[in-house]
Order: sequence, then structure tokens, then C-alpha cells
Amino acid sequence: MRTIAPPPLSEDSLIAMIAAACGAPSRPLRVGIGDDAAAWKPNPHHLALVTTDMIVDDVHFRTRDSSATLIGRKALAKSLSDIAAMGGRPVLAVIALGVTAELDEAWYRSFYEGMTALARATHCAIAGGDIVRAPALTIGVTVIGEVRKTSMRLRSGAQAGDVIAATGALGLAAAGLRAIEMERSTLTVDRGGRFEEAIDAYERPQPRIDEGVFLGSCRAVHALMDISDGLSTDVRRMARASKVDAVIECDELYVHPVVRDVDGDALDLILNGGDDYELIASIDKRAFDHVARSFRSRAGRPLRAVGRFEPGEGEVWLDRNGKRAPLEPGGYDHFKKM
Amino acid sequence: MRTIAPPPLSEDSLIAMIAAACGAPSRPLRVGIGDDAAAWKPNPHHLALVTTDMIVDDVHFRTRDSSATLIGRKALAKSLSDIAAMGGRPVLAVIALGVTAELDEAWYRSFYEGMTALARATHCAIAGGDIVRAPALTIGVTVIGEVRKTSMRLRSGAQAGDVIAATGALGLAAAGLRAIEMERSTLTVDRGGRFEEAIDAYERPQPRIDEGVFLGSCRAVHALMDISDGLSTDVRRMARASKVDAVIECDELYVHPVVRDVDGDALDLILNGGDDYELIASIDKRAFDHVARSFRSRAGRPLRAVGRFEPGEGEVWLDRNGKRAPLEPGGYDHFKKM
Repeated sequence: MRTIAPPPLSEDSLIAMIAAACGAPSRPLRVGIGDDAAAWKPNPHHLALVTTDMIVDDVHFRTRDSSATLIGRKALAKSLSDIAAMGGRPVLAVIALGVTAELDEAWYRSFYEGMTALARATHCAIAGGDIVRAPALTIGVTVIGEVRKTSMRLRSGAQAGDVIAATGALGLAAAGLRAIEMERSTLTVDRGGRFEEAIDAYERPQPRIDEGVFLGSCRAVHALMDISDGLSTDVRRMARASKVDAVIECDELYVHPVVRDVDGDALDLILNGGDDYELIASIDKRAFDHVARSFRSRAGRPLRAVGRFEPGEGEVWLDRNGKRAPLEPGGYDHFKKM
Repeated sequence: MRTIAPPPLSEDSLIAMIAAACGAPSRPLRVGIGDDAAAWKPNPHHLALVTTDMIVDDVHFRTRDSSATLIGRKALAKSLSDIAAMGGRPVLAVIALGVTAELDEAWYRSFYEGMTALARATHCAIAGGDIVRAPALTIGVTVIGEVRKTSMRLRSGAQAGDVIAATGALGLAAAGLRAIEMERSTLTVDRGGRFEEAIDAYERPQPRIDEGVFLGSCRAVHALMDISDGLSTDVRRMARASKVDAVIECDELYVHPVVRDVDGDALDLILNGGDDYELIASIDKRAFDHVARSFRSRAGRPLRAVGRFEPGEGEVWLDRNGKRAPLEPGGYDHFKKM
């Protein structure tokens, strides 16, 4: 018996396969996959938003450790989170892929299925893309969104006196990564067990779109961003953009049970763990309790205070037992190792 | 004397440097570089367009052979050409960069200056991006454009009987690449000489934006696309999308003097040379002379017929001395070597 290698995919046949894997877009486009550009009718009463992210094999993920479905899903989630961080909703995404010869048709199909499942859930159309050869799998995602003019929130709007609040448990994704690494090193698999929620937070992050839209609709919310690079790094970005100091209140921080139980320093995971994709909001102190109650009734989860902004120049402080120390950024900097 | 290595660039300082290199955007944005997403007010009377492209070192260009300025310029030109191919104008671009440790601050500055110069010339704002580490320099460009609803032209509109016309000399960029390779192999430099126009076409392609807008405004223009991958490949895409056959008229093809003089088969360069970034239009035969006259008076260059569409199923034929043979796609397929 001879086995015959499948013919190499041509660009056009790959694009046809991808269009099929993506299925009908989850919202109507004037022009979708296959022409020189995609076209859509923008909402005339909204501002349009655009964000782009690139992730690279062995830098941001590992193809040998992760399923194509999860990689596709997470690549899109990262950019959707940026749209949520403006108070907006996604409209469409275009995907640029740099691929190696090792990927086969099944990999592509799973990748786009993972991406499409999240795109459908968030009413985001996959509208087109580009595929080229590259030395390592490289995924460029650009998401276009829209936001009501009065609902857009920037990083630069935080005011001294505001409460800093987060839409979910911090450090959970980093705890999930630790749990996965523990499983690998001990060769035991504890899926469905006590670390499941954390592993899910790491592998299948939920962009906080409805939460961002709600927070953007509250006049008391002055600033909004997502914290993909870790609280200590990202809260500094908000503080600097807003020209205020941030004080993280160590004693008030919510510690998720898994973050406490996983092998590692819980405070370090909370302050410096990346990949959380929660939003942080700067909220007028007088309105915080009201906003938090409304948030809980809508999102089914608490909006938790993590600190406050004070007059200053963009420094970040950690307040612990009434003592204050500078908090250095310990989150993920893509260039630290360069 | 000790030389002190400059501190490695952090992500935030690199973004600040890039924002400075890009200068003020060439059109007003609500939010530009530095927040979670860029924001703009879309034109309510236009359709919005989006296109994304990725280029990779050693696949699409070589950092060791090209200046950062030219790489930046050409990366943007490729996507601007896609917007032109819809009959539209660019609005803004976002740039995702995968970078190696070998690039220094001067490289980044030149890269963004090259890109910004073309962005200004085409009224396209650089609105943001992402920078990550990668094993090879990888450039993801996404351009958002806009087009009057009645001016948008797709690949799929070509009709049997239409003239196929090109906005410039085909094969010129490929001839420029040959000239550069000849110069390298003989170690002679002939800049400013007879190959200059071709080298310019290769190194500094001009996206045909005004030409695309004009062609989109002509009712007799039924279809439009750009031919970055070579005429034989791209005209087949238009033929298939439009469900007609294309016939390239070999005896009518314009041969640019450099394409004739450079070391290579002129017909092969014209049919299969990539990187031209000219537009091809499918134009009602009765109106072609009128459209071509108007085009020349506006663009200052001729619009030249290269063939015609006929009833068919998407095949491409080469007509030479009255004899017809199938024309196989010989242009650049990103996957041919996988």
C-alpha cells in the first residue's frame, strides 16, 4: 500500500475552507471574506472603534500544549476585551495568520471553529483576513467595534477620590496556568476538579462586553480599561494617563479560593498575574455602592473595589496594614526579555 | 572608556516613541494611539471598508536588504491598495508588529517615518497598534477605509464582453526586483539610471487611490481589484468571482521599455510578476474609450486594455497571434512552497 500525501493547500483553497469553517457571519456585512476588503454599514449614531493584537507561538502560547480551538478562541478574546474596555460592542474581526508547514487542514478548521464560536456569542462577524508563511505561528487579530458617544470611557478619565473596581477575581488566570503546569509536572490531570474555574479563566477568557457596556452607561464611571498585562502594570497605565496616583488596598483585595490554594504567592498572582481580561473601572466614590449593586444584579457577579485614586503624578502604591509602599509593575511586559 | 548598552526598550516607552515618530494624525480621530482601542466618527453616508495584510521577514522582504523606511512604506502601501481596489479611500491604519531583539530605536523610527510619510500623502491616520516579540520581523497592517455606496466595486461584477484594463505598466515592479538583483550580483549600482522607474515601482509602490475612486465613480466600470499577486493569478480570481472567462490579448499588452530591457522574459514578468499594485477594472466595452480618455486626463497616465471577459466558468486564456491557450496562474501563491 502506498500512502499519498495530500496536495499542499493553495491560498485560494485555504481561503475557501476558512470561509466554510466560519459559516454565515453573525451579523450582516455588505462584503465578507474573499474580496479585496470587507465592507459594512457603520452605525451613524455611534463612534467606531478599532483594536489590533498579535500573538506568537512560544511567546504568548504554545501550539504543542494548546488545542487549535482554544488558541483561536483566546486570540479573538484578547481583542474583544479591548473593545469592551472602551464601553463598546464588537462588530467584526479580520484575522491575519502567519503559518508554518506543520499545520494541517484539521488544525485550521479547529482554529476557526474556536474563533467563530466566540465570535457568534459576541455578535462579531469574521469578515476576512490574510494568510502567509511565517517561521512560527503568528496570529494578528483586528476587531472593529462601536460605542455610543456618551458611553465611551478612556484610560485618562480617572479622578482623585475615585474607587478602583474590578469586574472579576484577579489572578485567577495566572492560577489556572500554575494549575496546568502542576498537572504537567506531576502527570496528574485534575480537570473538573477544584482548579477548573481557574483553568477555564486561563484557557477560555470571557471578554467582559456586557459589563463594559453597562459601566460605560454609568455617568459615575470615569475611566475604563482591561488588565490583560496584570493589575500592577495596567493600573499604572490608567494612573499615568489620568495624572493621578493609584493606591491598591491590600487588605481589601478579594482572594479567590483557587488563587489562595494554588502553588504560589496569592498576592503576587493578584497583582502581577496576566491574562485576566477583567475590566478595571474608576468610579465616583459616592456612586460606587449604587453602581456595584446594579452591576451585580445585571452581571450576576460582584464588582469589587481594589483601591482608590489620589492626587498625584501617576505613581502606584500598595497599602498594607496602613503602611504604604511603591508598587513596581510586575505584570507582563512584552519587551522585558529583549 | 566604557560603552554602556542602552537600556532595553519597555513596551510603554516604545509606544511613546512610536507615537512621536507618527506625529499628529493626518485626520482627526476621537481616540488615537495609547488607549485600549482607537475611535473615530464614521462617515454616515459611506460604507466602511477593512482589509488586513501580514508580511514576514525573509518571506515578503529582507530586513538585511531593505531600509526600514522602505519596509514601513511598502507594508502600508499593500493594504492601501486593497482599499483602492474597492473604489474607496483610507481613513486609518493600525499596525501590529512582531519584532526581534536585533531592531534598535533608529530602526523603529525609520520604519514609522516611512509609513507615516505615505499615510500623510493618502490622508490615512496611524491610529494604534501592538508590539510583541517574534522569531522574525512580522508586520500586520489593517487599514480602514470608506467608500460611497454607489462607488464600491467588487471582484464579482465583471460581465462577458467587458474590456479588462490596467491602471499602469504590468511587470514593472518585478523588473525592478530583477534590476536590484542584477546590481547586487555585479556589484554595480545604477540608481538614477534607466532602471530607476522599475526599482521605484518595486520599492515604493503607489497605491492607486485616486484612480480607484475615479473608476468606482464610473457606471461603466463593473468590477475592480488590485493585482499584487500577478495578472495571471489575480485576473483568474476576478473571472471566477464573476463566473466569466478572461482572455488576455498578448499582442495588445503594453511592454514598458524597462520590462523589455531587463534580464528576463518580458511576457513572464507582465503575466506573473507580483508586487505591481496596479488596479484592473472590468469596463463596459462601449464606454471603454470614454473612460480611458477621462482616466488619462485625471491621472496623467493611460488606462490600458489587457484583454476581455467572455462567457465562461472562470477560466483564463492567453490569445497570441489569434491562437488561444489556457493561461495557468504563475503569480505569487503564499502556499506554493509549503
